[in-house]
Amino acid sequence: MSKKIAAFGEVMMRMQVPENLLLTQANSLQYSFSGTGVNITGSIEKLGYESALISTLPANPIGDAAISHLQKLGISTDYIARSGNYIGMYFLENGIGARPSRVTYSNRMQSSFNTASKSNYSFHKIAEEIDLLHVCGITLAMNENVRQQMIRLANLVKEQGGTVLFDCNYRPSLWGENGHLKAKPYYDQLLNIADMVMMNEKDALYTLEYHCQHQEREKQLEELIPKVAEDYNIAMIAGTHRTIHHDDSHSIKGYLYQAGKFHYAKQEQFRVLDRIGAGDAFATGIIHGKLQDYQPQQTIQFATASCMLAHTIVGDTPLSTKQEILQASNHQIRDVIR
Amino acid sequence: MSKKIAAFGEVMMRMQVPENLLLTQANSLQYSFSGTGVNITGSIEKLGYESALISTLPANPIGDAAISHLQKLGISTDYIARSGNYIGMYFLENGIGARPSRVTYSNRMQSSFNTASKSNYSFHKIAEEIDLLHVCGITLAMNENVRQQMIRLANLVKEQGGTVLFDCNYRPSLWGENGHLKAKPYYDQLLNIADMVMMNEKDALYTLEYHCQHQEREKQLEELIPKVAEDYNIAMIAGTHRTIHHDDSHSIKGYLYQAGKFHYAKQEQFRVLDRIGAGDAFATGIIHGKLQDYQPQQTIQFATASCMLAHTIVGDTPLSTKQEILQASNHQIRDVIR
Amino acid sequence: MSKKIAAFGEVMMRMQVPENLLLTQANSLQYSFSGTGVNITGSIEKLGYESALISTLPANPIGDAAISHLQKLGISTDYIARSGNYIGMYFLENGIGARPSRVTYSNRMQSSFNTASKSNYSFHKIAEEIDLLHVCGITLAMNENVRQQMIRLANLVKEQGGTVLFDCNYRPSLWGENGHLKAKPYYDQLLNIADMVMMNEKDALYTLEYHCQHQEREKQLEELIPKVAEDYNIAMIAGTHRTIHHDDSHSIKGYLYQAGKFHYAKQEQFRVLDRIGAGDAFATGIIHGKLQDYQPQQTIQFATASCMLAHTIVGDTPLSTKQEILQASNHQIRDVIR
Amino acid sequence: MSKKIAAFGEVMMRMQVPENLLLTQANSLQYSFSGTGVNITGSIEKLGYESALISTLPANPIGDAAISHLQKLGISTDYIARSGNYIGMYFLENGIGARPSRVTYSNRMQSSFNTASKSNYSFHKIAEEIDLLHVCGITLAMNENVRQQMIRLANLVKEQGGTVLFDCNYRPSLWGENGHLKAKPYYDQLLNIADMVMMNEKDALYTLEYHCQHQEREKQLEELIPKVAEDYNIAMIAGTHRTIHHDDSHSIKGYLYQAGKFHYAKQEQFRVLDRIGAGDAFATGIIHGKLQDYQPQQTIQFATASCMLAHTIVGDTPLSTKQEILQASNHQIRDVIR
Amino acid sequence: MSKKIAAFGEVMMRMQVPENLLLTQANSLQYSFSGTGVNITGSIEKLGYESALISTLPANPIGDAAISHLQKLGISTDYIARSGNYIGMYFLENGIGARPSRVTYSNRMQSSFNTASKSNYSFHKIAEEIDLLHVCGITLAMNENVRQQMIRLANLVKEQGGTVLFDCNYRPSLWGENGHLKAKPYYDQLLNIADMVMMNEKDALYTLEYHCQHQEREKQLEELIPKVAEDYNIAMIAGTHRTIHHDDSHSIKGYLYQAGKFHYAKQEQFRVLDRIGAGDAFATGIIHGKLQDYQPQQTIQFATASCMLAHTIVGDTPLSTKQEILQASNHQIRDVIR
Amino acid sequence: MSKKIAAFGEVMMRMQVPENLLLTQANSLQYSFSGTGVNITGSIEKLGYESALISTLPANPIGDAAISHLQKLGISTDYIARSGNYIGMYFLENGIGARPSRVTYSNRMQSSFNTASKSNYSFHKIAEEIDLLHVCGITLAMNENVRQQMIRLANLVKEQGGTVLFDCNYRPSLWGENGHLKAKPYYDQLLNIADMVMMNEKDALYTLEYHCQHQEREKQLEELIPKVAEDYNIAMIAGTHRTIHHDDSHSIKGYLYQAGKFHYAKQEQFRVLDRIGAGDAFATGIIHGKLQDYQPQQTIQFATASCMLAHTIVGDTPLSTKQEILQASNHQIRDVIR
Repeated sequence: MSKKIAAFGEVMMRMQVPENLLLTQANSLQYSFSGTGVNITGSIEKLGYESALISTLPANPIGDAAISHLQKLGISTDYIARSGNYIGMYFLENGIGARPSRVTYSNRMQSSFNTASKSNYSFHKIAEEIDLLHVCGITLAMNENVRQQMIRLANLVKEQGGTVLFDCNYRPSLWGENGHLKAKPYYDQLLNIADMVMMNEKDALYTLEYHCQHQEREKQLEELIPKVAEDYNIAMIAGTHRTIHHDDSHSIKGYLYQAGKFHYAKQEQFRVLDRIGAGDAFATGIIHGKLQDYQPQQTIQFATASCMLAHTIVGDTPLSTKQEILQASNHQIRDVIR
Repeated sequence: MSKKIAAFGEVMMRMQVPENLLLTQANSLQYSFSGTGVNITGSIEKLGYESALISTLPANPIGDAAISHLQKLGISTDYIARSGNYIGMYFLENGIGARPSRVTYSNRMQSSFNTASKSNYSFHKIAEEIDLLHVCGITLAMNENVRQQMIRLANLVKEQGGTVLFDCNYRPSLWGENGHLKAKPYYDQLLNIADMVMMNEKDALYTLEYHCQHQEREKQLEELIPKVAEDYNIAMIAGTHRTIHHDDSHSIKGYLYQAGKFHYAKQEQFRVLDRIGAGDAFATGIIHGKLQDYQPQQTIQFATASCMLAHTIVGDTPLSTKQEILQASNHQIRDVIR
Repeated sequence: MSKKIAAFGEVMMRMQVPENLLLTQANSLQYSFSGTGVNITGSIEKLGYESALISTLPANPIGDAAISHLQKLGISTDYIARSGNYIGMYFLENGIGARPSRVTYSNRMQSSFNTASKSNYSFHKIAEEIDLLHVCGITLAMNENVRQQMIRLANLVKEQGGTVLFDCNYRPSLWGENGHLKAKPYYDQLLNIADMVMMNEKDALYTLEYHCQHQEREKQLEELIPKVAEDYNIAMIAGTHRTIHHDDSHSIKGYLYQAGKFHYAKQEQFRVLDRIGAGDAFATGIIHGKLQDYQPQQTIQFATASCMLAHTIVGDTPLSTKQEILQASNHQIRDVIR
Repeated sequence: MSKKIAAFGEVMMRMQVPENLLLTQANSLQYSFSGTGVNITGSIEKLGYESALISTLPANPIGDAAISHLQKLGISTDYIARSGNYIGMYFLENGIGARPSRVTYSNRMQSSFNTASKSNYSFHKIAEEIDLLHVCGITLAMNENVRQQMIRLANLVKEQGGTVLFDCNYRPSLWGENGHLKAKPYYDQLLNIADMVMMNEKDALYTLEYHCQHQEREKQLEELIPKVAEDYNIAMIAGTHRTIHHDDSHSIKGYLYQAGKFHYAKQEQFRVLDRIGAGDAFATGIIHGKLQDYQPQQTIQFATASCMLAHTIVGDTPLSTKQEILQASNHQIRDVIR
Repeated sequence: MSKKIAAFGEVMMRMQVPENLLLTQANSLQYSFSGTGVNITGSIEKLGYESALISTLPANPIGDAAISHLQKLGISTDYIARSGNYIGMYFLENGIGARPSRVTYSNRMQSSFNTASKSNYSFHKIAEEIDLLHVCGITLAMNENVRQQMIRLANLVKEQGGTVLFDCNYRPSLWGENGHLKAKPYYDQLLNIADMVMMNEKDALYTLEYHCQHQEREKQLEELIPKVAEDYNIAMIAGTHRTIHHDDSHSIKGYLYQAGKFHYAKQEQFRVLDRIGAGDAFATGIIHGKLQDYQPQQTIQFATASCMLAHTIVGDTPLSTKQEILQASNHQIRDVIR
Repeated sequence: MSKKIAAFGEVMMRMQVPENLLLTQANSLQYSFSGTGVNITGSIEKLGYESALISTLPANPIGDAAISHLQKLGISTDYIARSGNYIGMYFLENGIGARPSRVTYSNRMQSSFNTASKSNYSFHKIAEEIDLLHVCGITLAMNENVRQQMIRLANLVKEQGGTVLFDCNYRPSLWGENGHLKAKPYYDQLLNIADMVMMNEKDALYTLEYHCQHQEREKQLEELIPKVAEDYNIAMIAGTHRTIHHDDSHSIKGYLYQAGKFHYAKQEQFRVLDRIGAGDAFATGIIHGKLQDYQPQQTIQFATASCMLAHTIVGDTPLSTKQEILQASNHQIRDVIR
């Protein structure tokens, strides 16, 4: 029987300006629904798992459209409550060449998810039914109410023998000035709960306030991650180093730290169509490796290929199948498939 | 020298689902920027006046896009402040036949306009520079802060010898349950200030709590409007009766009450392309008649034709020229103009 | 606990030429996935039931897209097998005014559904799990293989105490010349099994070879339907009379024959946006009335309103909610809902 | 062997603003290539004739696109020369309801066609190869050079025993003030050459300066057309009376005057999608009746149905087949054709 | 007088998912009509030749659309029969970066072309009228009926003194498992007939079962092609080696073997917009060189530039003019042409 | 108080074929309004200056659309007259890879701007109100009438103490054969008036007929520009060297010659989305440096970054803000901005 993966998080309405136009130039937007939780559950479903999102959406036509979108992705909406009036939104203007992409948020603080009461969710039932819970630092930045819901659920899942994955995903703009001081206590709690953590040396340095004398990020990583793993008792830590090139291509180098050892995937350079959500594809790949008992090297190769392919999919949510990821991890470029 | 008309009100981002699709079916939205104030100032500019909007927009790419849109309409943005973070939005699903159009609002309560401090605006300078101010009941429904700004500005305009037009525009969903009890004191204040008022018998009955023994709306109108004019000392009151037919056509009958007399336009039936903002085209027509010293009958004919044509323009903001409105008021249907 | 409704039928890929263009003029197509079974299960889900489609789709990107589309509609895909290579398609050119709409089919005879073996389906399990099965005359026209699957499943559902609805849906072009001679034995079988039948006098006259001396369709209906009900022992028979007007509006008059009595809905005239699938909305309304133990008059009013609203939805599959249908059945035309 | 019909005229680039937007609102245009000659030859080809356009196009990418478009319509481009630099263009803003459609021309006076030398065309060869030549009053309004080419070609066709059809098509804006004084001598020449003429009483009254005491157009027609036929010795004269209704529908009543008798088609009322080019569809129908030796009544019915259907086709050029026109002339409205 | 080139082959309807979306994500498709024969005759027409396709299309709106499309490309449709009911289709999802493009076929085996009887074609007349016939291995893979038609036509062309070009174009998925065993006898026949052959070493190795000890494709080519030329008595053999790079660019190196000598074009690397049909542009270039008696080096340069430019054209059919190809063969990159 | 910059020049309607289609393939065009003057005034407005265009537009819907577009860009339309009937247009087909972009002009010689009388403009008033005037060689190529207007205005601006910038912008196709002989006297006049000139060594060699023994453009530049500066007494001369690479990227190296010294920006290589108008972004950057009294090195860095960013904006008119240009001049590539 297939495993069931759930994520707790907000559904965002993504409003993309077409092609490479600016908001001042265009008159139409392409919309979809995403968010870290959506990306994780939508992409893990493509790998053959049951998946469910734990969230709240308004009982209006926008909420209905979000539900339809999640259903289309194959995500179970059984854990989704309907209350409140609003949905968080963001507007994306695609950059190109010398001009970076730009995201502008609508007001998400009054969204259904961020104003939901904990009675919206049957946390005990959920914790019993799922095998793995994904939570992330974006949700942690929202408000105290949501933070407490997230921590409670993560604890319940652990109690039921489930696995908890925490993606640090520290977003400075959400925490405000000196935000890391506000954030650290919550990060500490989550890291103590989590079995698997997505992060790199920057999280250790700037959020968790570790210190390091090295200047190169590779060395910082190798010094700090083992400390984090030990301090918080985390079984698996994984993450990526991204390099952005002048020709709209990026490079990703993925690492996995497990059982005291670092495992690296071959660095990949690839053309980028849609960068958002690619980090979630990496996390999905790590989850898959974990649930399939892959060897660490196999896991990190798979996760990196998953991440790379996610850059070729329009929209935030990765959609690649297991077979496509395995083929991409062979580093071969193929002609038209007929 | 041309007169200068200003309106105080929120800029809304209109998100229209294309054609007759539902939000659950589509994946793109057509956006524009509107709001009663935008509609009035945008349409009065087409009639040859200077126009300016008094509002606040966020200093981000969405605010920039709104500014560009207002500039495109020929509206002066000199009275627009930039502060806050958000813009009010609404989603429009176009109905057809047996299915009505449907509007879903995003959270406008935290919008830049609705959270602006009065220091955003140079009310004294504005009051000196403009000839006519348009305010409406939608703004009145927002919050106490905005209400006080609106009342203060209206009073200043009066002090400077300007004209104030108040459009009652009572929206039940904005005031909540028993909203009219909450609304009436503010409506009283505005009606006492205003020289010109847009309303019909429903406003008198349900917001101002007038009573009437007639059942037919025509008789209710003729009994109540003169009382309102007298009680609040209003020089001109105008409005419409709308009838919706089964073939996606509407009928509009416009009235103007001035100097103790009712003047009616010929009732028009016409096919409807975009109904939103048509009431503002009516108000614009009344303003034009007033500023041009039209005869009352000429004014109400012009305003009704302006309203009728507004139903043929995509988007909220009426765009017809004076010449087009005069031609339409001749009741002739014309073949292709080449 | 909500009832579960299933339909057995082919998923068709609908390829619509945009707006009112011809295939020779356009260069793009809007696609969706439909079919009678999809329409029934997709629309009944909106009324609050569990619904599932019993079908076969190819294991390729087109089949994947169909699955996503069904999931988006909230239809369970648990009873859908993946085998074969093709999907049936049809191309729709929208008519207007004096030019009728036109449908051109691709080759559906080799579709996955029409070439599926019966081992694709767990008919016993399905029959146990569902409350009502919908089958229709289009499937019956395909080939002997599919006909036998359909009859077998219908019989199993009856054995398990479920309800079987048969929609006659006789399509002359599918049966070929003298097709009714070929069709009649199968129609006889299905009518004998079915508890509920969708048909009108034309089916009785031209497929079942009943005779009638009346010329007017209303009288033919009232003479023939009771005979059919008696001869085949059918509890409920329902259907519509459609009239097409010169201004792109249609009229529908729905009838329900139950317990020896005819019940008629008020005839409705309405503007038509998308006519395909509206008959399925009628059937869905009848199913809802039956499952909710509505009074016959209530059922036929609901089904007719459901049918009327389906003409306002782009695409084949009706999407109206129970609340929307109830409002439409009040015969009121409403202004923009805000 | 099928007859060959040619037309002499300019190819115009049609630039249509999408849907019902104004040029100030939109940012895209849909383009096609048309003109009276294109419409006649493009639509007569659908009826099974060989057809060829006699014109000149620039040897640049726009001219190439025009050639491709004509080829797509099945029009022979063998008689099209390539010289000059420009193509005439017009911009179309679709009206709706109370707002009429509007056409704005680019500068066509310097177009390749209007600046072509007569050496561009092998008039003798063309006159030998074709059975019928279509010319029209729009070309006549261009300049002296084009007028002389047109008259010369028409005379050569007559000399070779071919038929000449002249469509009066008087466009006031092209001839300028008191234009009919300038136009009349040329109209006289063409009417003297032509075997078939498209016109109605307005051409007789305002271009040819006939007088009439009747006020109703029907009576004017019946008095003036026989005089014109006699004065200019014209075998067939045909035309339409158009009435425009308030619900975006038009009525057309076609007449044919032949052998001293009037023949009228049943008046048709129909919804209008694209009105431009519908007059050319009428002329095409008359040509077909003539070439098939239809009875006059049959001819005028066919031409009127052809005209009616042309209002349902996007773009200027009618595209209906003979079978579709015959079906439409039966006055039946049909459901979806499958 | 210009030469006439014909091709015998199926017309495919190409359905392209817009931009880089997947079929599961999009809701529209861009369609056009192509196929190897269409590509050859459409592109050779741009070089100034008469061209005609020999094929069969259904007599329905899809067939009409295909005819219009071929006409637009300037391809004569005189040799196209209308019978049968279907057209072959394929769906194209554009890859990008690490994700390859993907083609999914509809059922082409029942297409009009693949079920046509030989009486559809006037092979003798065609063989008399054309100078060069293009046939290819894709058609050969269809069925025995089509194979025999192709072989018969090729023989007739040879008898009439015409030239026959055979493009090996071996598609493994069309021949099935051990397909080369099935294919070889037919390839033998065609190679014996053909004067010109498009192939490379892979065809020799895997279809014709030649053996070679070299591992590098360049050496394999130089060993095997002369043998093939000798064994089958082929005057000209040409082909390309393609290399796919990580930045969505490809390299092409073209070769021509003629009169016992190899001629190579300079290897070109270029960005790829639409890869499908580029091989046909190469063949078209070779045909042009042959018909113009170019020197071999000139021919292979021209064909390679033609192939390179074909990657910059949306759709399968190359559209470059002779002048554009000559400019591209100069290896210069040019700024905007004004 | 902010400076006011004006430009004298024609407004062109840009008609862009979507994506990378050819005019023969597409059926829609994206339109906007541009021209060198529009680009300069539109982009300088984004840097915080007042800007105004001096031009003439037709008083028709196309002219209205142009006015709206200029207003949207924030350009004052106070100096724009409305007369004449036409607007200049150009059609843009986007190249890619080996295929260059291609521009085809409509007839601009009869445009409103090119046929305007000098009484259209209040040159004295304008000269008094503006700080800097931009004129260019494209306008100079139009006709004697426009040339005299331009020279007169430039002289008046100088008289009033304003700055005149002349962009050489020599377009061979506009001047015809031996055009430089015709152009030189006018270039001499403008260079003698101008304070700032945009040019490089090609203008000196081919328009001004300077001679140089060097073959490399860098050396030619360094020899010729100081001579030009001296001969015509020009305070600032600036320009770029562009290199076009095979992967659709370009390199730009900007120079500024001021006070007897050359200043170079770091050469930038970047991916190109829309190349047209990028030269105007460079000029805008130079103007900004001049008006802000930047150091020469700072000016040339800013202008080059402005030019580079302009390649990332769809449409001719650069839209980058001062902040964006400063960030881009730091040579850093940034991830998504949130």
